[in-house]
Amino acid sequence: MKKLLLQLDSSRHASVFDQVVAYDAGADEIMSAPAVTPPDVRDLVHGCIFTRGPKHLKNTAVFIGGADMSAGDALLDAARKAFFGPFRVSVMLDSNGSNTTAVAAVVKIVRAMGGNVRGHRVVVTAGTGPVGLRAAGLLAHAGATVRITSRRAPDGARARDAIMKRFGGVVEVTCLTDAGQTAQCLEGAQVLLNCGPAGVQLVQRAAWANRSGLKVAVDLNAVPPQGVEGIEPNDDGVARDGVTCFGALGVGNFKMAIHKAAIARLFDSADAVLDAESIHELAQTLSG
Amino acid sequence: MKKLLLQLDSSRHASVFDQVVAYDAGADEIMSAPAVTPPDVRDLVHGCIFTRGPKHLKNTAVFIGGADMSAGDALLDAARKAFFGPFRVSVMLDSNGSNTTAVAAVVKIVRAMGGNVRGHRVVVTAGTGPVGLRAAGLLAHAGATVRITSRRAPDGARARDAIMKRFGGVVEVTCLTDAGQTAQCLEGAQVLLNCGPAGVQLVQRAAWANRSGLKVAVDLNAVPPQGVEGIEPNDDGVARDGVTCFGALGVGNFKMAIHKAAIARLFDSADAVLDAESIHELAQTLSG
Amino acid sequence: MKKLLLQLDSSRHASVFDQVVAYDAGADEIMSAPAVTPPDVRDLVHGCIFTRGPKHLKNTAVFIGGADMSAGDALLDAARKAFFGPFRVSVMLDSNGSNTTAVAAVVKIVRAMGGNVRGHRVVVTAGTGPVGLRAAGLLAHAGATVRITSRRAPDGARARDAIMKRFGGVVEVTCLTDAGQTAQCLEGAQVLLNCGPAGVQLVQRAAWANRSGLKVAVDLNAVPPQGVEGIEPNDDGVARDGVTCFGALGVGNFKMAIHKAAIARLFDSADAVLDAESIHELAQTLSG
Repeated sequence: MKKLLLQLDSSRHASVFDQVVAYDAGADEIMSAPAVTPPDVRDLVHGCIFTRGPKHLKNTAVFIGGADMSAGDALLDAARKAFFGPFRVSVMLDSNGSNTTAVAAVVKIVRAMGGNVRGHRVVVTAGTGPVGLRAAGLLAHAGATVRITSRRAPDGARARDAIMKRFGGVVEVTCLTDAGQTAQCLEGAQVLLNCGPAGVQLVQRAAWANRSGLKVAVDLNAVPPQGVEGIEPNDDGVARDGVTCFGALGVGNFKMAIHKAAIARLFDSADAVLDAESIHELAQTLSG
Repeated sequence: MKKLLLQLDSSRHASVFDQVVAYDAGADEIMSAPAVTPPDVRDLVHGCIFTRGPKHLKNTAVFIGGADMSAGDALLDAARKAFFGPFRVSVMLDSNGSNTTAVAAVVKIVRAMGGNVRGHRVVVTAGTGPVGLRAAGLLAHAGATVRITSRRAPDGARARDAIMKRFGGVVEVTCLTDAGQTAQCLEGAQVLLNCGPAGVQLVQRAAWANRSGLKVAVDLNAVPPQGVEGIEPNDDGVARDGVTCFGALGVGNFKMAIHKAAIARLFDSADAVLDAESIHELAQTLSG
Repeated sequence: MKKLLLQLDSSRHASVFDQVVAYDAGADEIMSAPAVTPPDVRDLVHGCIFTRGPKHLKNTAVFIGGADMSAGDALLDAARKAFFGPFRVSVMLDSNGSNTTAVAAVVKIVRAMGGNVRGHRVVVTAGTGPVGLRAAGLLAHAGATVRITSRRAPDGARARDAIMKRFGGVVEVTCLTDAGQTAQCLEGAQVLLNCGPAGVQLVQRAAWANRSGLKVAVDLNAVPPQGVEGIEPNDDGVARDGVTCFGALGVGNFKMAIHKAAIARLFDSADAVLDAESIHELAQTLSG
């Protein structure tokens, strides 16, 4: 019996990234539904739960993606509401890599910080996208004081509220309209995590290199120019100017391992719900 | 050579239900086209008939689905018009399970009625959807006097006209705005078939239990609460209060066998046209 | 590792023709994206280049199709811009068979003309579609004097400009509103190539049969009535009324071989760019 993955994607085009990883992680076929909204979900999910007998339900699973984190959250809610009794399949949420990339970065950061970020200050630049929201939330949940930055103040405030509602903890927000302001924003920080878009440099070298107190810096942008000047994509715990550095591919290799392990996990049973916390837990069992 | 199934679906999202069943019935790959309208069909079907040599055309087939029965009928017409000479592939119409579910219910009903429904009265509640339209049509064609119900009088009249145009026979319509009116509507009926939507209770127990003359009751809704109060989803010919009962899963298991046999049939030759009558004929050869 | 083909299609429905051929040419799975515009391309292509390690990138490739040639050209540009350094995959452009069908027709024509069309006159009827644009361009590039016809003068002028900009050479245009005008248009021509739409007869027998100087006539329409009256779909170098004739299936069989060879070529390395010239080169190595 084929392992079938239903891809519910909130964006106009379903993520090709998620499709490639799903195939490589063992899905036999992907049933791809783009531009999905919450009212669409019930019928789509019923197509999964009413077609194969209870013993075989673990061979079908649901993957939720897309560029919008809150849309992803809403689709996950709708999918869980469509289940009832034994009529359910495993489901994973990972809007734009939100959970797998965020977890990979967070685990790298925590390990580089000696296993604990409680009480430390973390700055997440461009923290309003899916990965930033999830990473900030997991770090806040782990006891760090997290500051996210955003180019637009209302977006930042909305992101902060969403993170605290979902994960609790302490989250602050700074409106950052110019890369020149980053240095000031990093004052007192032990950790820098850049979640800015592909090909945009948000942090100049002068802002972070040899900065007193800064221990870890992570850049998740793989497309030149780098988001954090001076960090190489392949950096995976490299010491540069007194700071332990991680680049997009250094984190990305671990993200891939987490992403694939999570997909494989979906087909182990029919009742898994993989979101930030459960994927974080899964990642702890992996080296990377 | 891979068995390829082109899924032409009239709805905004292609049916996941139909995709899962197609894979389980032996399709190697599904080429899924949602939101298809009749003018789109020719090019899509030409992609099937001009790509593989005549000897190999039986390895490609077309499945037509979607939530709207008349849209499905129009797509089937358009597909048949796109064929010419030996340039054709097998095609199956099953908008929202219209044909396979309807046939499963009708065969169960006829068998439970001793092999014949001629002259008997059948009430099909919520009979304006794809399954109701097809079931009512097949029963009318078999000689039953069929009464469909609808919440909206114009929908009911339109459905009755469509059924009689397509299948002939005698079809009446009742506007039913309240579940309390069902009992009256069932007067004189030997068979009750509920085709109402998921999770909506249309027939209360008092309306059907121990009703004089009523022999068979079928509920096609699998999502709680049941559409016919007192019928369990797994009922498959269970006697309850003097009535032989069938629930959504009891019928559904047979529907699955029919659906899969029909998909497999598509790949036996390049010239099958599977619609209500031919699927009904196919189902007669199956136990269930 | 599965061979994955990303289908970027500019039309509202992704081409089924291209999907069937891709499966038959060895693609394991197709990731199909319809209604793609240039701004969509970067994220979709990044999904291909960031998911598998450099050694494995040759197992993913991009196919660009759709009904609109200029849209296809723009998608190819966008895809190439999304590559950087070793982060790239092979890509093929074939909007509506533009390159593979055009190349098949052109190679057939050149071979039937003794290996050279330099200085000869070629008329391409309905030459403003993807296949006509590419065939006219390749023939002009090979030194022929090419005249395309169009029902609408502005379309013809736009097509001529696009061909000359892309391929150089000499291209003329004639506005042809009536099949009766075709004879006059063919005066002095050695080659006739009809690229008109399915089921439309553009050239009557009297216009081409026994015409002095005319050596080769090709009809690419496979749907009755034939586009060039008197040419049979299976003609593959048949002499009729003094002219060497090729029909849609005669050319189509060669087109299929070229199309499949090109798809297979995509998975040989991660750096192929298959457009008119490179597909023409590939086709020279094939018999047909």
